[in-house]
Order: sequence, then C-alpha cells, then structure tokens
Amino acid sequence: MGSLSSFKIGRVVFAQALMDNKLMLMIPGPTPIPEKVLLAQAKHPIGHRSGEFSEIMGEVTENLKWLHQTQNDVLVLSASGTGAMEAAIINFLSRGDRVLVGSNGKFGDRWAQICQAFGLDTQIITAQWGKPLDPADFQQALAADTDKAIKAVIITHSETSTGVLNSLEAINTHVKAHGEALIVVDAVTSLGAYNLPTDELGLDVVGSGSQKGYMIPPGLGFVSVSAKAWKAYEQATLPKFYLDLGKYQKAAAKNSNPFTPPISLVFALQTALQMMKAEGLGSIFARHDRQKRATRAAMRAMGQPLFTSDAAASPAVTAVMPQQVDAEQIRSVMKKRFNIALAGGQDQLKGQIFRIGHLGFVSDRDILTVVGALEATLFELGADGSAAGAGIAAASKILMAS
Amino acid sequence: MGSLSSFKIGRVVFAQALMDNKLMLMIPGPTPIPEKVLLAQAKHPIGHRSGEFSEIMGEVTENLKWLHQTQNDVLVLSASGTGAMEAAIINFLSRGDRVLVGSNGKFGDRWAQICQAFGLDTQIITAQWGKPLDPADFQQALAADTDKAIKAVIITHSETSTGVLNSLEAINTHVKAHGEALIVVDAVTSLGAYNLPTDELGLDVVGSGSQKGYMIPPGLGFVSVSAKAWKAYEQATLPKFYLDLGKYQKAAAKNSNPFTPPISLVFALQTALQMMKAEGLGSIFARHDRQKRATRAAMRAMGQPLFTSDAAASPAVTAVMPQQVDAEQIRSVMKKRFNIALAGGQDQLKGQIFRIGHLGFVSDRDILTVVGALEATLFELGADGSAAGAGIAAASKILMAS
Repeated sequence: MGSLSSFKIGRVVFAQALMDNKLMLMIPGPTPIPEKVLLAQAKHPIGHRSGEFSEIMGEVTENLKWLHQTQNDVLVLSASGTGAMEAAIINFLSRGDRVLVGSNGKFGDRWAQICQAFGLDTQIITAQWGKPLDPADFQQALAADTDKAIKAVIITHSETSTGVLNSLEAINTHVKAHGEALIVVDAVTSLGAYNLPTDELGLDVVGSGSQKGYMIPPGLGFVSVSAKAWKAYEQATLPKFYLDLGKYQKAAAKNSNPFTPPISLVFALQTALQMMKAEGLGSIFARHDRQKRATRAAMRAMGQPLFTSDAAASPAVTAVMPQQVDAEQIRSVMKKRFNIALAGGQDQLKGQIFRIGHLGFVSDRDILTVVGALEATLFELGADGSAAGAGIAAASKILMAS
Repeated sequence: MGSLSSFKIGRVVFAQALMDNKLMLMIPGPTPIPEKVLLAQAKHPIGHRSGEFSEIMGEVTENLKWLHQTQNDVLVLSASGTGAMEAAIINFLSRGDRVLVGSNGKFGDRWAQICQAFGLDTQIITAQWGKPLDPADFQQALAADTDKAIKAVIITHSETSTGVLNSLEAINTHVKAHGEALIVVDAVTSLGAYNLPTDELGLDVVGSGSQKGYMIPPGLGFVSVSAKAWKAYEQATLPKFYLDLGKYQKAAAKNSNPFTPPISLVFALQTALQMMKAEGLGSIFARHDRQKRATRAAMRAMGQPLFTSDAAASPAVTAVMPQQVDAEQIRSVMKKRFNIALAGGQDQLKGQIFRIGHLGFVSDRDILTVVGALEATLFELGADGSAAGAGIAAASKILMAS
C-alpha cells in the first residue's frame, strides 16, 4: 500500500514510502538478520542449567573458535560490544598500568575513554579520522619502551565510524617485537568480514559483538583470550565481578555460563554460526571484499567522494562525503522514499558523511539495490557529474567479475 | 509421538516422554514466555538510533516506571540480573565504604561477593537458609552506627535459592530511621510478582532482570535510581564505564541508549509490558499470591515438607524438602516422564530440595498441572502419607475460592 503523503527537500517533492515491514537495514550494525535466525529467537527458552542447553553451548563454543580461527577460549557475555571491550581491558590490567591506544575514530576514542575510566596510564596514538593508524608510530613508541612498561597495545581493527581498516598485521608485528605487551583488538566490525587468524597472528584478546558479522541481533558480546592473556589475568587487580572472565572460562569448561545467558540470542547464535560454517570463511571474506569494491566503484562512478583510501577501506562499511548535496538529505530521501536505512556521521563527522553498511547478511543484490536507490536519490537532489546508471554499471562490473 | 524408551529409578520403570517442543518451564527463571512476546523477538531489528526505536524506548520507559510504581529513573541495561546488581553497587559507592548486606541464600551471598570484589567494607547480616532475615538485626546495626558510616543497606527481596521473601518493609523502616544509608534491593524475583511500591517505600536502587516477572527471555537488566541515589552517584569513585548509570540516564532522557541495546529483547519487553498493563498490577499480585498459596497447600496435603514458613514464603518460588524420596529423583521423573522442568537446590542445598517456580506467565491451570504430575511422580516413587488426589483437592480449593 503506497501512501499519498509526500515530503519536500529544497524545491523537490518526494512521495513518501509508508509500507510497513519493508525496511532495508544498510547500516554497520545492527545488520540484516536471516529469517531462520529471527525465528530461532522465537523458540521458547529452556533452562540454562539443562543438558539440552549445555549441548548448545558446546556447539556454539566450538563454532566460535572456528570463526575466530583459534584454540583460545572464546567467551560469551550478556552485554553489548562495549561490555566486551571493557572486559578485554579490566581482566588483564591493573590501575596505573601503561597502555598504548590507537585512536582514529569514535571507537578508538572509546578505547581511550575506557582505559582512562579505569585509571590506566594511557598513551594515545592518533591519526586523522578517515586515515589509518600509522604502524611506524607504534614501532617508535614500543621501541622506546626499553623498560617494557607498556602492558598492552589496544586498537580498533575496523573503525566503524569512518570506514577505515587499520593495519592490524603491521602494528601487531611491532607488538610481537616488543615481546611483553598484550595485543588487544576491537574486531567488532572486522570479525566475520575480514580474515582474522587469531592464532596465526598471536592476538591476545579480541572483542566483538553479535549485531555485526554474526548476523544476529545485539545483546551478546564475545572475548577471545590467549594463554599469555590468562597469565596477565592472574596479576591484574582492577576490580571486577560481572565481567570477570575467569568466571566465564570456568563455566565454559562445563559448557555453561556463570550468570543466566540470553537464551534466545544463543539460539540465534547457534543458527547463524551454522549458516556461516555452511558458507565457509573464504567465501564470507570474498563476499565482503567484493561488495566493498563494488560499493566504492559505484560511488566513484557517481561522483561521490569516498572518505577513505582504497588501501585503508573497511570490508564492513563505506563512508561517503558528498559535496554537492547534503549527507543528511541523502539519508532522509533514502529512508523516506525507499525505506533504506543508511548511517550518518558520528561526533565530529555528524552531517558530513553517510555510511553504507555491507556487513553480515548482505547479498550482492543488496548492493545493487542500494546503489540504484542512491542514483535515483542523487539525481532528484540535483547532484550531477555522472551519467545515469553509471553507479550500477560500475558495481555490476565488479560483482559479476568476481 | 510417545516413545517406547524407558528409564528406571530404584525398582520402578518409567516410560520416557520424548515429545519435542512440549517442555513446561516451572523454574524461577527463565520463566514461561507468552507466544506474542516470543514472536515480537522475531521481528527484524530496526536501527537503534532511529525515531521508531526512540518511540519504543519512550513507551517502554513509561511502562517500566508504572511497573516499579515510581517516578525515579528506570534504566535498561544489556546484561543479566547480576550485571544490574553490580551497577546498583558501583555507581553509588566508593572503595572502603561501609555497607550492610543481608544474606540468607545464594543471591544474598552474591551481593556480598560483589561488595567484596569492589573493596567495600562489607558487614554481612545472615540468617539460616530457608529463614527470613531478622529486621531487628538491621535495626541494631543501624542504631549502633551513630557516625553514619553505613552508606548502603543491601538486601535480596525474594531469595530465589530458598523461596524466602525477606521483610523489605520492616528492614526499610530501620534504614529510613538511620537517615543516611541508601536502601538497595535485589527485586529480581519479586518485581512483577509482589507489591513493590518504590516511591511509597522510598527505595533508592532496585535491580531486576528480564527472565522473571517480566515474562521475557534473559538478557535485559533494569535498575531504578532515586534522587538520593543520584546524589550519592556524584560522590562515588568506583571505576565504571559500561555499567556507568549516568550514561544511561543521559541517553534515556532522549529515549535512547548509550550503547547498542538488545533490540529484539526490547521488542519483547514492549509487548510484555503492554500485557502486564492490561492485566493490572493488582491482578498480577493476586495471581502470584493465589498460586503460591495453592502450591503450598498442595505440598502439605501431599505430605511434602515446605522449606519456608507461610509468613516468609516467596510469591515466585516454593521450595520443598522431600523426606521419603530423593529430590533429584523427583526432578528427574518430572522432567523425563512429564517434560516439566523444576529447579533443584543450589550450593549447600544441592540435592536436598526441589523448587517450583510460579513466577511470571503462569496460569492457575499450570499449578494444577504441576501438582497433578507431582502426585503421580511421588506415588510411583513410593512416597506415601497422603490420599491420591489430595494435592489437587487442596490446590483447587484455594484457586477456586480466590
């Protein structure tokens, strides 16, 4: 049922789409959810201390290790991603410990805020928003630390706020050369989108959240913990109880949880991980890479400036900084006319960029859809500089070549 | 499809029920979930920064205040009940602060553990498991505190592990006479089951969890905060970030959340609160009281010793300490033969009691069902001391009189 109501931007009048249940979520989280994952949540809860639930926890834990490419513990928390991030800090450090934090966006800033809230001696390495962290800065700071006072190097892998993928591998090389510091990674929008071989890289603590590559709704946080990190845990004195990962490790050994887990989300996780295994890690990563390249090529063909370089582009989200038309107007038309939700800019980027999420349960068809709708939107808003259909042509070329 | 497989307890052979999807959850959490709440979770997530989601948060917050009978802030966390409990402590206290904790069960013990984990000067008032806390003990400790050093009195209202309802009203009277200390309450299995007039009693901090009276799956924690508690928040220095309630208050003022909330559980909460409002607080409390009395009368009629006195009986859960037959055998037959999950004893009560949950979405019919199945189970296991049907007769009398 289309509606007769309309809205106006400048001199342009748009018909407003008011169809219910037709929302298309193209933001970098919460991401689209497969139907069978949605329905898994609707199953009636069972007792969390039952044998049936333990079986599910066992399966889920095995599959989480597969996804993380690790033999480390991967622990499941009832928390949003930030809760997992906090757990990744407070379990392994003590008040006054020196840490090196990389920050080139909202979530890097959040790492720094968490460290400061817990009284850590926080040295922040920054880069301009939209640019990647420079591994040489880490090399220098770590090389200067001859006393080995730096206890942890903490970075955001995929910076959701800007669409930058930081050079985890290069930074990690310098951490390994230092030898003492733990490497702690926010993989919230890289896990399940980009190759993250936890054991091969020797990543000590990796945090993530369910509403991203996992293809399930928000509410679960995940933390993987290496043997080296568990040794640090023994010395760490920051106070903790609910986010005390030792309790989760002890319970996980019995396929259980220290506190009542979000049972319906665990059902969803079980189903989503089965789907991911069926698709295969290689296919998942190739899909995200292909869709990232197609989205970027389309933006270029449509004359829309990309906020990040190709070399530092996140596989999860593409940020665009439009020049001729207002970013918020574009988002508004996309939402009201086509029922497509795009993300806006955060903090200092508010109103300046829009972000297209291509993370998790996103198909090639979805990329063509969002590009097509953006072409129509930009044309109506009076942007020029590209031939009609140029975006679709550019995206198709990449999607069909892969 | 009944199964032909069977199991044996002592000399008795039982047919085993293997029907799928026929589980009846009669434990004190997770509790049964209404169909429309289950299905609300299966709705596709929307953006948590969208106007649509803000509207839902606004409605939900209003209804949470109604449920708590308060004008205080009621904040929604992505956490299990224990996360809410921790938030209720770390936001209002500083290291070394003196607190008075009541403990007469597993969850009172947990309060003490949380306080100790955060370095509080923790004075514990105990009572035997199965007995209520004695308000006179609080009166004495508070009267002796002429320096007003006690910053908070922390108690569990309904002690889920034993089925005891502590005398919140009486203890609170002594806290008010003290004048300085905050009253902090674990209402996890009393909220939505028993009259808890937050403002009338002047309760400062009340914590609860979603998988109880709320009739939704686990994964949401709730904390109500009084103006007096917010004043304490300003002085409190325990480190916090994810569970920093100031961030939640600030976001809630804009019908938002500081971190991505569990959207599907918020959809469930919206639906469940609508159902609770339609039933009405008076009816909800009367239902829990009636079912508690019916369950207890049935146990007495069946010769099964109740673990708590009538005066201290929780409206949410009835603990039974069987003498002639083993508690775990009873649970096993109830589960395998009738697909009814009862809870067992925890910690020091392991194997000694079984617990019948009658909390949340439980109908009078469910009480007759569990009593009937228990009668059949006890008869087969060789318990005697009651006439066949005595439990149902006793329960019916109470259910039909109300």
